[in-house]
Amino acid sequence: SMRISQFYLPTLREDPAEAEIASHKMMFRTGMIRKVSSGIYAFLPLGWRVFRKVENIIREEMNRAGAHEVYMPAIHPAELWQETGRWYEYGKELLRMNDRHDRPYCFGPTHEEVITDLARKEIRSYRQMPLNLYQIQVKFRDEIRPRFGVMRAREFIMKDAYSFDVDEKASDVAYWKMYTAYERIFTRCGLDFRPVEAESGLIGGSFSHEFMALASTGEETIASCTSCDYAANVKKAEIAVADNQPAAGEKQKPMQKVATPEIKTIEALSDFLKVSARDLVKTLIFESDKGVVAALVRGDHEVNEIKLMTTLDASHAELASDDVVEKITDSPKGFAGPIGLKVPIIADHALKGLVNLVTGANEKDAHLVNVNFERDFHVERFADIRMVVQGDRCPRCGSLFRFDRGIEVGQVFKLGKKYSEAMNATYLDDQGAEKPMVMGCYGIGLARTMAAVIEQNHDDDGVIFPMSVAPFHVIVVPVNDQNTALMETAHRVTEDLEKQDIEVLLDDRAERPGVKFKDADLIGVPLRVTLGEKHFGRGKLEIFRRKTGETILVKIDEAVKTLAGMVEDELASHMPDK
Amino acid sequence: SMRISQFYLPTLREDPAEAEIASHKMMFRTGMIRKVSSGIYAFLPLGWRVFRKVENIIREEMNRAGAHEVYMPAIHPAELWQETGRWYEYGKELLRMNDRHDRPYCFGPTHEEVITDLARKEIRSYRQMPLNLYQIQVKFRDEIRPRFGVMRAREFIMKDAYSFDVDEKASDVAYWKMYTAYERIFTRCGLDFRPVEAESGLIGGSFSHEFMALASTGEETIASCTSCDYAANVKKAEIAVADNQPAAGEKQKPMQKVATPEIKTIEALSDFLKVSARDLVKTLIFESDKGVVAALVRGDHEVNEIKLMTTLDASHAELASDDVVEKITDSPKGFAGPIGLKVPIIADHALKGLVNLVTGANEKDAHLVNVNFERDFHVERFADIRMVVQGDRCPRCGSLFRFDRGIEVGQVFKLGKKYSEAMNATYLDDQGAEKPMVMGCYGIGLARTMAAVIEQNHDDDGVIFPMSVAPFHVIVVPVNDQNTALMETAHRVTEDLEKQDIEVLLDDRAERPGVKFKDADLIGVPLRVTLGEKHFGRGKLEIFRRKTGETILVKIDEAVKTLAGMVEDELASHMPDK
Repeated sequence: SMRISQFYLPTLREDPAEAEIASHKMMFRTGMIRKVSSGIYAFLPLGWRVFRKVENIIREEMNRAGAHEVYMPAIHPAELWQETGRWYEYGKELLRMNDRHDRPYCFGPTHEEVITDLARKEIRSYRQMPLNLYQIQVKFRDEIRPRFGVMRAREFIMKDAYSFDVDEKASDVAYWKMYTAYERIFTRCGLDFRPVEAESGLIGGSFSHEFMALASTGEETIASCTSCDYAANVKKAEIAVADNQPAAGEKQKPMQKVATPEIKTIEALSDFLKVSARDLVKTLIFESDKGVVAALVRGDHEVNEIKLMTTLDASHAELASDDVVEKITDSPKGFAGPIGLKVPIIADHALKGLVNLVTGANEKDAHLVNVNFERDFHVERFADIRMVVQGDRCPRCGSLFRFDRGIEVGQVFKLGKKYSEAMNATYLDDQGAEKPMVMGCYGIGLARTMAAVIEQNHDDDGVIFPMSVAPFHVIVVPVNDQNTALMETAHRVTEDLEKQDIEVLLDDRAERPGVKFKDADLIGVPLRVTLGEKHFGRGKLEIFRRKTGETILVKIDEAVKTLAGMVEDELASHMPDK
Repeated sequence: SMRISQFYLPTLREDPAEAEIASHKMMFRTGMIRKVSSGIYAFLPLGWRVFRKVENIIREEMNRAGAHEVYMPAIHPAELWQETGRWYEYGKELLRMNDRHDRPYCFGPTHEEVITDLARKEIRSYRQMPLNLYQIQVKFRDEIRPRFGVMRAREFIMKDAYSFDVDEKASDVAYWKMYTAYERIFTRCGLDFRPVEAESGLIGGSFSHEFMALASTGEETIASCTSCDYAANVKKAEIAVADNQPAAGEKQKPMQKVATPEIKTIEALSDFLKVSARDLVKTLIFESDKGVVAALVRGDHEVNEIKLMTTLDASHAELASDDVVEKITDSPKGFAGPIGLKVPIIADHALKGLVNLVTGANEKDAHLVNVNFERDFHVERFADIRMVVQGDRCPRCGSLFRFDRGIEVGQVFKLGKKYSEAMNATYLDDQGAEKPMVMGCYGIGLARTMAAVIEQNHDDDGVIFPMSVAPFHVIVVPVNDQNTALMETAHRVTEDLEKQDIEVLLDDRAERPGVKFKDADLIGVPLRVTLGEKHFGRGKLEIFRRKTGETILVKIDEAVKTLAGMVEDELASHMPDK
């Protein structure tokens, strides 16, 4: 049985200086993790027990969903990454090295290249699919700013799965199977989460959901409809087209140039002209693989580069360099406007129907007022090219959005044929024709999931673990280690609980009861059994439930049965319906 | 339930060109592993199931021995390795890289530095010890010649444990606890193994055992006494001092110089003088941190550098460069002899008592015959400085050695204070005095253990897994997938077995029975259930035991009970006594 005196449990009374969020503080104070280097952590025994619980839940649900576990290496040969081009696209986040023969390798930040290489060598026939292979394995992403402890670490363990199917339809089935498995996994971990539509980023592919653990300290923002089910990462959220109508009787006025000396920002212009930012128009010049374009958005809106890329059907788009801006607008940066530009103009939907706009004049120290669409310049296309903001409405039902913060604990992607085409991973279909496999990929950050659970389940005294991922189900605290009979009972209760497969930590230290209670609260064991001398004399002990603070007195003889029932009930409460 | 049609099982009929040993061939042919790059492998589902069995056995036994599981990172900051000096000693085997900020890191080949850093921060008091922390984690050693598949890979998963104790005596207890745990682990894996005394190599420390799986293809050689328990790696094996007596009446003769034009090797000299190599003396010049020395061994013996280092109490010793040899002997390389040397001479025990030696003359194209100890030159010390060979005798009991080949699957080390002193990992003893912790470290290569099991358990048809590490306990083979009643029974038997926690693979493919039997033999499932139409008509099925080839016919109704008993019996047979 696990006794604290023999269990490595170094708790601290103080938070680490760099910890900004509760989970980081508590994982450090409880001795779950220790920092080895920037963004690189070690798990101590208490933390590793929790980690392994999360790992086991994931493994059970992946197996239940029919995926097969494999294990791929951490170190990848550069050739594979060169084949897909990601060797060149990934930048500094990819940790690169040369081996003793000076051959280039990287520490895999994800495994699409390696698994696609395996698949193209092993899968020959449609009969070998559907196939879903997953692993639980270490990755490295050289984040520019690692933070929040294991939440945004450089080295981390991920569950990554890859599905291979004969066509889009079969791939959809695989995708939604994983979506369902993820719902079950995060439910079992006791998380309050929400799946939201998401962008694919460097992984690529056509469609994606993120699983967001809701938390005010989350790094992501979710826009969700206040009426229907639509929810998306703000980087992805689509926006209902606003029906702008000019104020009654508002007519197009004659355009005028206004001198705006040294005024280069929306804020400065808004102050100078005494109009709100929403009454101004920003003109931004972008370079993309489909050429240079001007993007117009309201002064209080921001361009969403990914939406712009989608609109342009481009594979990259970024703000043009100052040189390009100056060449295109024939003026210094800061005074761009739509009139007279020789590049296509894409305007955000929110500008449609507005009259008498304020824009840059493409001339140093000047802006134009009463600019009007078509009369003064041509818009190639109105489109949804901006970030969602408060007041925007759902694209599905038109209701207002609400905004929440979230921690991305998992993400599922439809990859389509991106990797199979790049790496020539083909199979023979039932007609003997060679076709590229259709792929999906599915990731979960294990330590981040664990941290998210703590972020959602704690109070000032420490962690409040859900039973399903608690390091121990029960902690047994005898208040006086000098009382032999009481200590014997504590040991007996511990052993009897263990016979019921209940995981117990026995606090056998020669510490004051207050210290023991504080530590038990800090590490968040769901049920505490207190063996105090008063009640012990009457054949009773106390059961304290960490989550609710409630205490019940039970006969010592009945304690094991009562506790086993409480553990079983709470474990069952985390289980999704079969 | 696991059906082959849904389980990723790509078996091959041919061996990979580069595979030299049975385990590598079979792991490849059964689709357990695939090569990703030189010395870097992926595990496919079948292989990973076996790996996980080995992993679970190790975890259970480590926990049973009171060790606590932790998890340390793969990427280590250079500073820690610089503190112990191993950053400079490790050479090209250490995979080094710089991160995005150009800070130096390495991929940990072992974790002494990281764990000692944790220990010095967390362990303050003698009360926190004994402590044994272990992990199951990925390592990288940039081997110059990776070979034998996962047996000598560059990236590999290791179980490594580190013990911390207050003194040598307590550290001994920890060491032997691990020794016992290792005996249990390898016994449970079904290995024929032997613990042997070993050298510490780059890990350092004072005492070590290797656990050798006996196999003719093993890369290590074990010398074991034919009478007593003494066994050691040949790199370590001590040798009983031989009692050399000159042949009756053999007297010291006058020394003579012999012209030996262009003769520089023992073989050439032996041919030229028509004497056996054992009648010649090799004089080798070594450089060490304790200065330059000459080492004398018999012509048919080899110097063991580690023994020489121990004799000199040096921390390194290597053959001197040609320049140094020429300077010390005042002659070209190849003619070194003991007479007139100005450096200390260490002679191997096997030379003691011999008369009329043949040695180099420290002069080009010349040797000396009838050289005699003390009369002609002074020996500083006779010592055991050579490699053991056939005919040598046990240092404990004087019996002859026998030699076997082995695969090193695990190693235990007493580290003493090597790391705690280098990194200042101290604790306060019960008197309040600050003392360095005494450490041990204990490793097992998981994939190598798995490969060793296959190396010991196979025949021409494939693997013969011990039940304890078999990917499945039972494979169910219905011979005709068109026979509905037979297929239904196959499914029912499979499900009933699974209800008894028996791991079953159902071969539901539309293949000929011969193909199915061949695959079942190849992947080495211990028990095969054959549902053939003839016996099926009589309500019976066949159980085939892979290991013995024996077949029994049982009633279908009794099959589950019979199989459960067979599985349980074989699992129990691997269990060491409690």
